[in-house]
Amino acid sequence: MMLPQRVCIVGLGLMGGSLALALRPFLAHLTIVESDAGTLAAARSLADAATEDLAAGVGQAEVVILATPVRTILGQLAELPQARPDGCMVLDLGSTKRQICRAMAALPAGFQAIGGHPMCGKESSGFAAAAPDLYQGQTFVLCRHGRTTPQVEKVAGEIISLIGARPLFLSPEEHDNLVGAVSHLPYVAAAVLMQTVAARQDERAWAVSASGWRDTARLAGSDPRVMLDIMLTNRSILIEHIGQYQAHLAGLKTLLLAGDEAGLADWLAEAQHAYAAYRQKK
Amino acid sequence: MMLPQRVCIVGLGLMGGSLALALRPFLAHLTIVESDAGTLAAARSLADAATEDLAAGVGQAEVVILATPVRTILGQLAELPQARPDGCMVLDLGSTKRQICRAMAALPAGFQAIGGHPMCGKESSGFAAAAPDLYQGQTFVLCRHGRTTPQVEKVAGEIISLIGARPLFLSPEEHDNLVGAVSHLPYVAAAVLMQTVAARQDERAWAVSASGWRDTARLAGSDPRVMLDIMLTNRSILIEHIGQYQAHLAGLKTLLLAGDEAGLADWLAEAQHAYAAYRQKK
Repeated sequence: MMLPQRVCIVGLGLMGGSLALALRPFLAHLTIVESDAGTLAAARSLADAATEDLAAGVGQAEVVILATPVRTILGQLAELPQARPDGCMVLDLGSTKRQICRAMAALPAGFQAIGGHPMCGKESSGFAAAAPDLYQGQTFVLCRHGRTTPQVEKVAGEIISLIGARPLFLSPEEHDNLVGAVSHLPYVAAAVLMQTVAARQDERAWAVSASGWRDTARLAGSDPRVMLDIMLTNRSILIEHIGQYQAHLAGLKTLLLAGDEAGLADWLAEAQHAYAAYRQKK
Repeated sequence: MMLPQRVCIVGLGLMGGSLALALRPFLAHLTIVESDAGTLAAARSLADAATEDLAAGVGQAEVVILATPVRTILGQLAELPQARPDGCMVLDLGSTKRQICRAMAALPAGFQAIGGHPMCGKESSGFAAAAPDLYQGQTFVLCRHGRTTPQVEKVAGEIISLIGARPLFLSPEEHDNLVGAVSHLPYVAAAVLMQTVAARQDERAWAVSASGWRDTARLAGSDPRVMLDIMLTNRSILIEHIGQYQAHLAGLKTLLLAGDEAGLADWLAEAQHAYAAYRQKK
């Protein structure tokens, strides 16, 4: 057992809850910080200690894992120096990494920290949707910064190994760019699709809809609180991705307007080839 | 057993193949028309007769079921009067219905025909992807037109019942509009997403991608031949849907550019509510 004795998980939602369930067997002492009264009751049965109060929860932890929406994490990072004047190890599970890693790098010298983002999720949220196998076989991105030490890297690696995930090191910029493309942009495509069809207010659409609709629209069900923080902390990159998406969409519409059969055939074949190339890798 | 004795299925792809597998136990005599030599071999083991030649295949059929891409169906409907001067019953499984129903309505008086579209599919295509339970529990749209008789309606209803699907009557216009929204537009959203991210040519994107990406991009793998015919025969409606999608996307981008937190929060919550409302119905 290479994990430190006392671990504190902050936020018992889908991600933090799944982590708590997966790590519980390996932890000598687990504290959970959770602001929702109902979830706090669940936390009490799972953890050795549970509290609504961040400062109390992190007070004696060797490792603090922040598993709340991105801007909540930023607020918690700002509170840590006062709550832990001696410092501690910090890992987070936040969906964007530039702002969080910048805040982590600015922590006082006693802190050792590393940014983290497990690449998995569900369209349902909260502890009710948590599952101990959520991370199994998934990629877990780690982002180093000025407060990252070999020790905290080792602890993060051990946690990732215990929950069955695979570490992937990226810079915060690389992370936000790549995840903007394969996670935030798909959310946008799905949510815009949902808004567009819902605006028709024709219930028969659902009777006619099948698995293609269900899968493409699924991410529209994502937690708005989580998505709001993602959008606001990855705003410039997401705007860029949306711009590229708009250009590709406009290109397709131009082919359609022109009735350009050969051009359309090429475009459709290209999309299928790109999909096949992705499926070969994943 | 209410089905006529001799049935001919034209096209042994995903849809026609699944129909042949599901109906086979109930058919006294099944003929399959298939132009692909490799698939024709599979057709021979499944059917009582198999041929590449449409005229030969439909020659003695009481019911002809056209299960090819939309524009191929249009070509076959044009050949039918010569192949069957006496007429027969015709059903199709084509993905768009206005042009097909117009062509069906123009068949000589000996024909009884009805437009059909089973609302199911896969991103993989061809007979290799066919499955006898593909239609189980799915909606099967039927479109009446000038050549639709109570008899052909009854036969179509019997087929739908035998394969475990549920009939839903729509006009060809209603069909193309609704299916444009919940099937063709999702394809566009998925394929544009795929094109946008593939254009980055960064293989690490796939390592970072998870189930959200996979589900949202899935339809990009659709058969380009099928999609080309869909786009060209539902062009005006799809262009309209894309225009509405573009407006919703531009609206979201405006909120992002302005950093309008309250506006974004409302937009995200609205998307989630719309998704939840759809899931309550389906």
